Amino acid sequence: MGKTLSEKILAKNAHRDVVNAGDVVWVDVDRSMMDDILGPRVQIAEKLPELTQEIKNRENVIVISDHYTPPANIRQAEIVKFTRDWSLENNIDNYYEFEGPCHQVMAEYGHVLPGTVILGTDSHTCMGGALGAFASGVGSTEMLGILATGQTWLKVPETIQVRWDGQLNPGVMAKDISLKTIGVIGHAGATYKAVEYVGETFDQMEIEQRMAITNMAVEMGAKVGLMPVDDKTIAYLDSLGIQRDSYSVYHSDADARFCQKLHFNSAELLPQVACPHEVDNVTAVMNVNTPIHQAYLGSCTGGRLSDLVAAAELLKGKKIAKGIRLLVSPSSKKIWKAASDAGVLSVLAEAGAVILAPTCGVCVGLHSGLLAPKEVCISASNRNFIGRMGSKEAFIYLGSPLTVAASAITGRVTDPREFL
Amino acid sequence: MGKTLSEKILAKNAHRDVVNAGDVVWVDVDRSMMDDILGPRVQIAEKLPELTQEIKNRENVIVISDHYTPPANIRQAEIVKFTRDWSLENNIDNYYEFEGPCHQVMAEYGHVLPGTVILGTDSHTCMGGALGAFASGVGSTEMLGILATGQTWLKVPETIQVRWDGQLNPGVMAKDISLKTIGVIGHAGATYKAVEYVGETFDQMEIEQRMAITNMAVEMGAKVGLMPVDDKTIAYLDSLGIQRDSYSVYHSDADARFCQKLHFNSAELLPQVACPHEVDNVTAVMNVNTPIHQAYLGSCTGGRLSDLVAAAELLKGKKIAKGIRLLVSPSSKKIWKAASDAGVLSVLAEAGAVILAPTCGVCVGLHSGLLAPKEVCISASNRNFIGRMGSKEAFIYLGSPLTVAASAITGRVTDPREFL
Repeated sequence: MGKTLSEKILAKNAHRDVVNAGDVVWVDVDRSMMDDILGPRVQIAEKLPELTQEIKNRENVIVISDHYTPPANIRQAEIVKFTRDWSLENNIDNYYEFEGPCHQVMAEYGHVLPGTVILGTDSHTCMGGALGAFASGVGSTEMLGILATGQTWLKVPETIQVRWDGQLNPGVMAKDISLKTIGVIGHAGATYKAVEYVGETFDQMEIEQRMAITNMAVEMGAKVGLMPVDDKTIAYLDSLGIQRDSYSVYHSDADARFCQKLHFNSAELLPQVACPHEVDNVTAVMNVNTPIHQAYLGSCTGGRLSDLVAAAELLKGKKIAKGIRLLVSPSSKKIWKAASDAGVLSVLAEAGAVILAPTCGVCVGLHSGLLAPKEVCISASNRNFIGRMGSKEAFIYLGSPLTVAASAITGRVTDPREFL
Repeated sequence: MGKTLSEKILAKNAHRDVVNAGDVVWVDVDRSMMDDILGPRVQIAEKLPELTQEIKNRENVIVISDHYTPPANIRQAEIVKFTRDWSLENNIDNYYEFEGPCHQVMAEYGHVLPGTVILGTDSHTCMGGALGAFASGVGSTEMLGILATGQTWLKVPETIQVRWDGQLNPGVMAKDISLKTIGVIGHAGATYKAVEYVGETFDQMEIEQRMAITNMAVEMGAKVGLMPVDDKTIAYLDSLGIQRDSYSVYHSDADARFCQKLHFNSAELLPQVACPHEVDNVTAVMNVNTPIHQAYLGSCTGGRLSDLVAAAELLKGKKIAKGIRLLVSPSSKKIWKAASDAGVLSVLAEAGAVILAPTCGVCVGLHSGLLAPKEVCISASNRNFIGRMGSKEAFIYLGSPLTVAASAITGRVTDPREFL
């Protein structure tokens, strides 16, 4: 019987020849990531000294202040300062702030490697699966144990194989695959399972776009979202200066056991939108025509360079609708810079966009663009829960960067194919 | 006996041949500006219907949501929505949001004309004096009366003439003139007076830099800060597409009565800094060496294109100090765009800056970069009061954009001449 990608990675990190879905195993944690909101300030700083004098594998700990940067009130400023000071006092070399959402920063700085186990105090840590890592979110208490021991226990997940073959049509993006998949599987349909995305559609897809898919695996309850490592993955890691002998590549065997297999045809996919207030409340964008007040292009899901470029190509020479705002927060400082250098930010601004600093703030309703009661937002981010981006009486639709751009022009939720 | 510029403008708007300092007069208000924080939501929306069925001279009313954009919490989002909705319901064509600080927006959209009376619900409305307008801040109650009648009463101010002759040395900017003048006059030394800035230094100075000076007249308690209208003023207005016959130019007479005259030599001016916690606690930057945590380049005082260009020239090819952050908020969306197009934002970002959206938020401690207790900030903005930018236990130093840039490199309050 063959093994899944998850089983192979966890076997390695459990120092066992074989592990099977359902086994509970102790594994080494290769990278431990904390953010500002659920990091050192939550139990960890207080309780860690009771458990240990020294953080285990300190060099593999990464701390990223991203939710509260730039701080919108004194409390947020205090938390960022606390996080920064704790990292300094504990000799955490890998401390980042004001750089943008942690998952993107993790990838860009080479902390996400194929075949590794990465745990972080943020639910979208699963994004790292785009690079073939077993990457998952954990609570702060669990992180406390990891910092003390360098290990944690995990149940080896069963795997759902999600296959997408065929070519995406113009106007359709990775985000649409992500939403469609979630719509079919449901918000709890992959609870504690690994979701492995395979098929020729992904073979043709750049790493940035793959990240928009694995990022949202948790929206089906998945423990991890995984993509096979291929030449594109290796080229991406090469571009970061990562040595090829510093990581190992694993693949699910053909005869591995999958608890479920789904098969989609990309050629049939239309632009998708998740309607309020559930991520799995998904339909084709063409079925929705709701007027909007805000369009948001950003977050660890939908603000990478290829997202901004796609939106800019659609918006070039056009203006956003009167009375609405288009907020853009590139997914990282590096992406901000690359988009600035390429003139992409200027194109977006010319169309009427407000360009924000890279931050988690908008997506999670902490600052930089909250919604008032009755306001409607189309967003390239990952959650449309009640109150997620501000008022509990606001409404959030999730769509691709192209759908966000098209909607900003018309002032209503709009299929981007109208502008092709 | 000759007349001052203030006396001439107020005589015109009072429909009288002559008015004298000390007279209390009813004047027509040419432009009435409200922001989000002290605009419609404060008494005005509630009380105005009791006074009138229709706003007087509605076409001259400008509403600008700038303090709470982008909204950092639900309350801020509600206020922006309220301000927007009120403007729409009252047929205010001149409603702006997410465009940046109101004073800059007022100037850019041609609402600030020489020889006019401009009153606004923000204390730095006096910035408009750089274009020869009698521009001043008023309370929301006073604005209520203005909206109902189109008029208000004013005491004609006495005038302090502040003359700066000579050439500024490299590394010295308009902001240094502003701080030095405030240091000499004191924070209450010009209470209810007009401060008129004259002299060859200003003759040579571009409009943008002049604005950094008149903006801070209120920091001496002044009613207005005025600059004579000259060819540079007219060229600036031309560039906005304003017809020359749409405004009148006045000048103080040579034999006008000034209650005080000060004379400075620009060639002797060193870079200045206002130390915590008063704007008039001014000394030469070279006397201060305090370590900083944050550097802020922005606001209606220090984030115009020439400010960003000056900072970028100093920062080009350099990096900001490790452990500090440089936040940049261009003074308006138009300036953001111009700086983006010119590659200035890329240079700043390459040095390590975080580029924010145009907003009042940082300067006034509402969002986008607050200070935690014990943190120290060098800022190109206009106030260093206790708690202004966040914690009451934080410390704010005010300096020129060049001083901010130099300090960001060294991580301590630094004279920019060290980098010339």
